[in-house]
Amino acid sequence: MGLHLASSRISLVGAGPGDPELLTLKGLRMIRSADVILYDALLSEEILDFARPGIPLLYVGKRCGKHAMSQEAISQLLVESALRHGHAVRLKGGDPFVFGRGGEEWLAAESVGIPVSVIPGVSSALAVPALAGIPLTHRGVSRGFWVLTATTKERKLSEEMEEAARSGATVVVLMGTRKVAQIAALFLQHRAADTPLALLQAGSLPESCTTVGVISETAEIIAAAENGERGVLVIGEVVNALVEQSNLNPINFHAGFSLT
Amino acid sequence: MGLHLASSRISLVGAGPGDPELLTLKGLRMIRSADVILYDALLSEEILDFARPGIPLLYVGKRCGKHAMSQEAISQLLVESALRHGHAVRLKGGDPFVFGRGGEEWLAAESVGIPVSVIPGVSSALAVPALAGIPLTHRGVSRGFWVLTATTKERKLSEEMEEAARSGATVVVLMGTRKVAQIAALFLQHRAADTPLALLQAGSLPESCTTVGVISETAEIIAAAENGERGVLVIGEVVNALVEQSNLNPINFHAGFSLT
Repeated sequence: MGLHLASSRISLVGAGPGDPELLTLKGLRMIRSADVILYDALLSEEILDFARPGIPLLYVGKRCGKHAMSQEAISQLLVESALRHGHAVRLKGGDPFVFGRGGEEWLAAESVGIPVSVIPGVSSALAVPALAGIPLTHRGVSRGFWVLTATTKERKLSEEMEEAARSGATVVVLMGTRKVAQIAALFLQHRAADTPLALLQAGSLPESCTTVGVISETAEIIAAAENGERGVLVIGEVVNALVEQSNLNPINFHAGFSLT
Repeated sequence: MGLHLASSRISLVGAGPGDPELLTLKGLRMIRSADVILYDALLSEEILDFARPGIPLLYVGKRCGKHAMSQEAISQLLVESALRHGHAVRLKGGDPFVFGRGGEEWLAAESVGIPVSVIPGVSSALAVPALAGIPLTHRGVSRGFWVLTATTKERKLSEEMEEAARSGATVVVLMGTRKVAQIAALFLQHRAADTPLALLQAGSLPESCTTVGVISETAEIIAAAENGERGVLVIGEVVNALVEQSNLNPINFHAGFSLT
């Protein structure tokens, strides 16, 4: 193993919400110049086809409930890969600094003096609602939004979730599919029973699934949704902003909205 | 003027935070196939070089304090452009559905039966902090963030801003440069005087400018910042998350952080 600190560098690249075409031009350039790529389970593997043939492609994905590498082990492998091969690209679903733990990888690189850069990506938190026909801001409906994860390290709902429920904010919850009932119950304590909720699964991929209802109907929403641990929840009036104003049937509207 | 409803379509394309390389592959494909482009003032005009030569490029930018087209007039021009030319691309800084008023343009297209699609972009709200070395989420520091605009239609701070100040959330404010003092004063009523604040200007462009301080030092922060009406404010401990843990001088750290 040759150590080449002088020629090592690390790029933390956001791959976007799933559709390979939602990669940025800069992300593509970084992947094409990579000497080694570390990637996780969230993104379409087609993006890896952009890499030069023969370079090491290291899977470091973490999936709910399955054995996975620790973040510390991933950060260490990233540093070692850059030292061994040169330009190491850490490819992440969405954006590296939005629930991507890119900050920890940045610090790991910095601690050993390897130059590191961040290439922002299209965040699933914003793009998945957009692709389901839900604008997170809309005139007269919503002037902002709060993005949260469903759970803390202790697997409880976070204090921020309680604050978000109490506020009037449009709320986006990532990775919350298994917690939908618990989250909806919390919001029911603080908001009207007919507050709209959308459960969005499989992001920007062809098999995406949108289920729309109100927070008092959570059991029906969960029953209608696909199985799966990952998803994006949107709570607030924006869920119906385009539907109501366009007089379309919500179900047909959401099913027919596509990215072409 | 030939009206071609059958061959008309509209794409609402997010151009990202300024750096032309932060355009997505899909956005590039849409621009290359456009028969007419409507664009605004926020983005690098280099992106327009991707368009086919000779197509109409219509500037519909709005700038604070200057005469500009109304949103209604822009939506109408977009529809007319699609009817006249075929594929109309509405190119917007950041993401079309995040403070981009894309929802209104979507409804305008839908109301006359023109097929419309949304191509998400890299939002300035998330990417500008990342490029300044500020991860909006970071282990042990922040598990979410609230994105807001500075002002309402009535040019006052919004109610949501008061709620955000009262909450513990990491807060991102767009287009807030002229309101920095007023926003900081509001946060001082609800949070510790040493709550970190960063003022980020010129986004992902080479002339970008980052000014970091705490909410009680707003006068100094404004004095140190570039002149300009547009910017991104970040309030919360994440401002210093990478600086403190990496033991770098904050000023040098932020100045030296670059996207390469």
